[in-house]
Amino acid sequence: MNALAIDLGGSHATCAVVRDDSVLISSIVKADGAGNLFTILPALREELHRLAQVVGISIRNCEGLAFGFCGIVDSRAKRVLSTSKKFDDAVNLDLAAWCRRSFGLPFAIENDARMALLGEMAFGAARGACDAVMITLGSGIGGAAVINGKLLDSKHGQAGTLGGHMPVVLGGRLCGCGNLGCAEAEASTCSLPEIYASHPDGAAGCLAGHAKLDFAQLFAAADHGDKVARATLDHCIHVWSALCVALIHAYDPEVLIVGGAVAKRAADFLPSMQAYVEKYAWTPWGHVQLRRAGLGEQAALLGAIPLLGANR
Amino acid sequence: MNALAIDLGGSHATCAVVRDDSVLISSIVKADGAGNLFTILPALREELHRLAQVVGISIRNCEGLAFGFCGIVDSRAKRVLSTSKKFDDAVNLDLAAWCRRSFGLPFAIENDARMALLGEMAFGAARGACDAVMITLGSGIGGAAVINGKLLDSKHGQAGTLGGHMPVVLGGRLCGCGNLGCAEAEASTCSLPEIYASHPDGAAGCLAGHAKLDFAQLFAAADHGDKVARATLDHCIHVWSALCVALIHAYDPEVLIVGGAVAKRAADFLPSMQAYVEKYAWTPWGHVQLRRAGLGEQAALLGAIPLLGANR
Repeated sequence: MNALAIDLGGSHATCAVVRDDSVLISSIVKADGAGNLFTILPALREELHRLAQVVGISIRNCEGLAFGFCGIVDSRAKRVLSTSKKFDDAVNLDLAAWCRRSFGLPFAIENDARMALLGEMAFGAARGACDAVMITLGSGIGGAAVINGKLLDSKHGQAGTLGGHMPVVLGGRLCGCGNLGCAEAEASTCSLPEIYASHPDGAAGCLAGHAKLDFAQLFAAADHGDKVARATLDHCIHVWSALCVALIHAYDPEVLIVGGAVAKRAADFLPSMQAYVEKYAWTPWGHVQLRRAGLGEQAALLGAIPLLGANR
Repeated sequence: MNALAIDLGGSHATCAVVRDDSVLISSIVKADGAGNLFTILPALREELHRLAQVVGISIRNCEGLAFGFCGIVDSRAKRVLSTSKKFDDAVNLDLAAWCRRSFGLPFAIENDARMALLGEMAFGAARGACDAVMITLGSGIGGAAVINGKLLDSKHGQAGTLGGHMPVVLGGRLCGCGNLGCAEAEASTCSLPEIYASHPDGAAGCLAGHAKLDFAQLFAAADHGDKVARATLDHCIHVWSALCVALIHAYDPEVLIVGGAVAKRAADFLPSMQAYVEKYAWTPWGHVQLRRAGLGEQAALLGAIPLLGANR
């Protein structure tokens, strides 16, 4: 089965032609989430046509186009329901009609993290599981949940999707979503400078005064013996671990997939999260297995295959 | 439609004969959760036969027996999956066979809070809703979730059922379930003496030194001006509010029903919980309505009707 796929994040869209468990070709189209989706549609159309031509696949031999969107999606109505300051015009676009006009193909759309979990379940770290949760750790925290083999579906598209927005710190930091103490507010890139600075020795750390910090910098500093970086990471790992317990209690998975940019360093934190979950999650039937995502940045693209398959 | 119903809690079983939206008759059989369920089955059998006779309903004119159990249940396999120090022998009992022998009737079993939500959706405060969450506040915190008109179902029966065990306080109090900082550990009867004593003026409060406290005592003390009781209640209301946001983010309901013994004082705390949810929950589509449970202690008994109806 061939398919066209788009994975749209806040800073770029990845366009691809996929076949079964392989991304045949992909490329990146720059896209500023603060702007409109409408204005980049012509570039996405042109790029997908070009990619198909390069790999010698006729568009009419594709099963459809699957679109992974960085917002809340109604996959049945094939519409974007709500956005979080990324491509806010998408709620007013009829993307299925655009797809029909541009490619003459069936259209499917899902939230990007949900599409990534579909990919991981079909071809990656969650293969063989019927009940799985995924979190993506990075500049934010994404989430998705599959119960009895199906993405958890709800009227406003939010069930399972707001994984990063479980409040785990009572009266904690203000999150971008408006809530207090969400895991995303307590342990993702946006909060790192504040967490670092709030450490008693924060002013003496080698990353003191940085207005922006990412996890790669933190891991590097911790590797070089910076104790404040180590403490900041330990706080984040604690928050992620509590979040895992919240999601396990909420959705009853057998497997919990950890993806996102931070997962590159999974060997440094997944074992302690696994130990936390085995100690604290209430799972009388056994233990949930935490696994690093297996498909990396291709997960959502490969989710195109099961997503279009389910829509047939 | 007539049905037999049992609602089994940690200290007693309520037996009933129900018809449509009414409990025709009910009575209480004492039952110590620390003991065995097996030993009280004869009393339950006898009591249900007696109740049916009193109201003049032949057992054979009942649709079945619905059993609400205070533990994790596999409703499809009609078995208790796990218990929490209440009637631990139940996992080894074939209650469907007992029901057949005792009454010659079809058998259905559900977790008690889930059965209560079924009752509230059919006849109570959640009538007309397709997407609802229920929490029961009392000696513990129970939970249940309905998405697209169906109780959320999962392999180990836990999804939606562990509502009280969302961790909302990072590194918080040890819960009976083994986790840290669960809403149940932070704001239910079992923790009240500790929360009260931990207040800076705790030793001077009128309830100081009580080894056991319940919410009725706390509300009474607060009504009489005890500031520590007021602060303890405010802490609990804060925890319940954060729990509501967690459950809204997890399950995407339109309505959140608050039941349990504490709901008798709902007028004193539901408005502030509603305000909290409107301020902090991420629901771009509108606002979740918090409502006091409408059926009180009859909710699970009346859940017998939709539960048996769904099993037909």
